[in-house]
Amino acid sequence: MLMTITLYDLAGAEDDRRFSPYCWRIKMALAHKSLPVKEVPWRFTEKEAIGFTEQGRVPVIVDDGNGGKAIWDSWAIAEYLDEAYPEKLLFTEQSGKAATYFLKCWVERIVHPGVVKQVLVDIYNHLHEKDKDYFRTSREKVFGMGLEDVVAPADEILPEFRASLAPMRAVFERFDFLGGDSPAFADHIAFGPFAWARAISARKLLEEEDPIYAWRERMLDLYDGYARLSPGYDT
Amino acid sequence: MLMTITLYDLAGAEDDRRFSPYCWRIKMALAHKSLPVKEVPWRFTEKEAIGFTEQGRVPVIVDDGNGGKAIWDSWAIAEYLDEAYPEKLLFTEQSGKAATYFLKCWVERIVHPGVVKQVLVDIYNHLHEKDKDYFRTSREKVFGMGLEDVVAPADEILPEFRASLAPMRAVFERFDFLGGDSPAFADHIAFGPFAWARAISARKLLEEEDPIYAWRERMLDLYDGYARLSPGYDT
Repeated sequence: MLMTITLYDLAGAEDDRRFSPYCWRIKMALAHKSLPVKEVPWRFTEKEAIGFTEQGRVPVIVDDGNGGKAIWDSWAIAEYLDEAYPEKLLFTEQSGKAATYFLKCWVERIVHPGVVKQVLVDIYNHLHEKDKDYFRTSREKVFGMGLEDVVAPADEILPEFRASLAPMRAVFERFDFLGGDSPAFADHIAFGPFAWARAISARKLLEEEDPIYAWRERMLDLYDGYARLSPGYDT
Repeated sequence: MLMTITLYDLAGAEDDRRFSPYCWRIKMALAHKSLPVKEVPWRFTEKEAIGFTEQGRVPVIVDDGNGGKAIWDSWAIAEYLDEAYPEKLLFTEQSGKAATYFLKCWVERIVHPGVVKQVLVDIYNHLHEKDKDYFRTSREKVFGMGLEDVVAPADEILPEFRASLAPMRAVFERFDFLGGDSPAFADHIAFGPFAWARAISARKLLEEEDPIYAWRERMLDLYDGYARLSPGYDT
């Protein structure tokens, strides 16, 4: 007999109108693995129906193939599914590399521009004489304005810059590094803009109580303090 | 004899002031692998020094241990290093999973709020009667305002919403899926908010020429059109 996984899935007015983004993750993950599923429509107010989990949110799965084991929280469910049903993995070597590529795209599109708007003139001031004309001309063409006009005052841009780092900050609630429990290329990528700013600017990009500050300290300590030994401003 | 990797590394006025975020990635990656490196200070205007690469940017590495092979582009260098020197990997199973966790944090902090500000009233309108009071009360408490006041007019929020997806869009210049060449849990996570909006709202979140639109179509086609068969608005 084929054992079934029961999924409690948020539903709207009609039983088949399913809209929770967290449930959709798991619906797609279960379809990905071609696992037999019984989807139970569940409404916000039906807390007692999932009372056995001692929490009030879906997705919740109950796996009959595993003694009726109940799992909730979409991330935990995905990890469970790969462990219990290791075919058609949700996390593969290739997908992990592609996710690091996503992180790279985020760093280049969010963090790099946020740093540039703060340190562009500092870069110029620290350049070798023979590079200064080239740098000013090429960058002013890219930005369509003078280097000095690109840079925003700290009180204007810092709150926005720090807020833009929220997705990265959230990782540190769970892991010490972007690579997980130990550093990986994801950390090297994200450390890049901070090493960049450190080399040429005295501006204090991060507050000391920011988990990203603590991570940056860990990065500076890595490899016998390799990055910390490089000339720069410690802010 | 220990073979050395030569790294052309952007320098400032002083030879040891190194500031390129792209070079820092590779400096940290080389340190991570404890590989012997000769760092050559390089300036923007020294294009001829890396002329053998037929392009004008650093980082560039030349690997004496591999017949003087030259590699440039920081991502390509990282991939090369893991292939040629597979100890202390830059991309591990664990780091890939953590990078997917970063993507999850980004989706929840950027995409979910961007969708909510557009469809909150649509959700309410599609709820089962027994959920409506609970939903209005709990959400209005979270937002500190009426549901109707959270939702922004399309012309006000859509340009900003679409722009906020830039890091994800950039992945599709290289890969068909966020999981790489095939779908993975990263795709299920990012598809969540689009499946959510589709189920309850007629608002056209994506333009048809957007690479994210094409990806969403691929996601709707997966698993024999599983998600497409679910009730919703096709926009």
